[in-house]
Amino acid sequence: MAKKALDVCLSPAMFSRHAGSEKVVVVIDILRATSAICTALANGAREIIPVDTVEEAREYKTKGFLVAAERDGFVLDFADFGNSPYNFTPDKVKDRSIVYSTTNGTGIINMSAECSMVLIGSYLNFSALTSWLIEQDRDVLLFCAGWKERVSLEDMVCAGAYASKLISSGTFTTICDSAHASMDLWDIAKDDLMGYIEKAAQRSRLRDKGLDDCIGFCHTFDLTSVLPVLKNGKLIPASEL
Amino acid sequence: MAKKALDVCLSPAMFSRHAGSEKVVVVIDILRATSAICTALANGAREIIPVDTVEEAREYKTKGFLVAAERDGFVLDFADFGNSPYNFTPDKVKDRSIVYSTTNGTGIINMSAECSMVLIGSYLNFSALTSWLIEQDRDVLLFCAGWKERVSLEDMVCAGAYASKLISSGTFTTICDSAHASMDLWDIAKDDLMGYIEKAAQRSRLRDKGLDDCIGFCHTFDLTSVLPVLKNGKLIPASEL
Repeated sequence: MAKKALDVCLSPAMFSRHAGSEKVVVVIDILRATSAICTALANGAREIIPVDTVEEAREYKTKGFLVAAERDGFVLDFADFGNSPYNFTPDKVKDRSIVYSTTNGTGIINMSAECSMVLIGSYLNFSALTSWLIEQDRDVLLFCAGWKERVSLEDMVCAGAYASKLISSGTFTTICDSAHASMDLWDIAKDDLMGYIEKAAQRSRLRDKGLDDCIGFCHTFDLTSVLPVLKNGKLIPASEL
Repeated sequence: MAKKALDVCLSPAMFSRHAGSEKVVVVIDILRATSAICTALANGAREIIPVDTVEEAREYKTKGFLVAAERDGFVLDFADFGNSPYNFTPDKVKDRSIVYSTTNGTGIINMSAECSMVLIGSYLNFSALTSWLIEQDRDVLLFCAGWKERVSLEDMVCAGAYASKLISSGTFTTICDSAHASMDLWDIAKDDLMGYIEKAAQRSRLRDKGLDDCIGFCHTFDLTSVLPVLKNGKLIPASEL
């Protein structure tokens, strides 16, 4: 069987150069959107509705939805809570629909919808998602959210972890320089992930705002096997497709 | 003295997020535009006129200019020669004005013109240019040409070499994740640069077209001390400013 193609896109500014209608896209926004989404679905949320704008999030709130919304790390005044995965506890999210809007992550989830399938990746669901991707007969694009169209080191390193796992399975190949670069960074970072992430700009931004309590959690492997997948504009567990 | 800020931009798609009117921009397109431009000026060319479009290059040709122009590695039919640094020999270029248009590099040179100063970087003029940047009291943006808005490994590695040198001088600091990533790749690549570049997509593209004779040359340090700088839309040696 021909090997599947693997691509890594390091910023939404480059998405049009990597996208393809047949590809499966894995969105990666480690600090903190995709870690939070995996946590929410793992804790029993029925669905996550990613919305791009503050206005959309506000409108959903007036309709009675639970709303998680932040910009630049700050919770929006009308929202129920922000972007930390620690907010999405079972008592708050079980069986609920959650409207979700963040600085970077939710916009690129909706941008990805032009591809054949959109999944949410993080360390938290790493083994479950990589195993699933290896089983599928489809090309994969790992899509890093970054920060305001710039590259984010923590997303690139996680993309490198995913890419290394997929390539080492023998079922994928890549001619994408961003994939090679990401895998090499993962190789450097993997033995001391927390130490390596210290130099990431988003690490500093979260520390400055006192929002860095979840950094270790967001870099923990395999706390859940949930596979969040986009269907009709909502993220649901793939098991319910 | 406060340290100067260092940024790395990995693709023209992200340039607007990194640009700044006060910054010095160093354009890096190792395979092959910026290596060829350094070679041309080192070999006595009077000036290089980078043009974005094939039409502009053709118009200059009708006016009697020497024209170097390629797209995707192929020499345009009306051009005198293409993009290999080996074309720019003293017998051809000495005291000449050369109009130059390539797939990626020349467009981003003109895009950079909104910043305070634009220089051309390569391995060929590495020590001269890094020394000059260290002497200046200005923030620096290392701008990688990439390939059709995607990241190019060979440009990223060279940016990492530049960034490592500037940071280690003690006069620069960075909070740019692309700079950290580039420096880490340089660290991996530096002891076997040719071996590392083997996995770059542009390495394969040039091999496929039989244009890879200059790869080693383009990764040679310090063959010249020329500092090509953009002035009124033309690249000239900084010594003639």
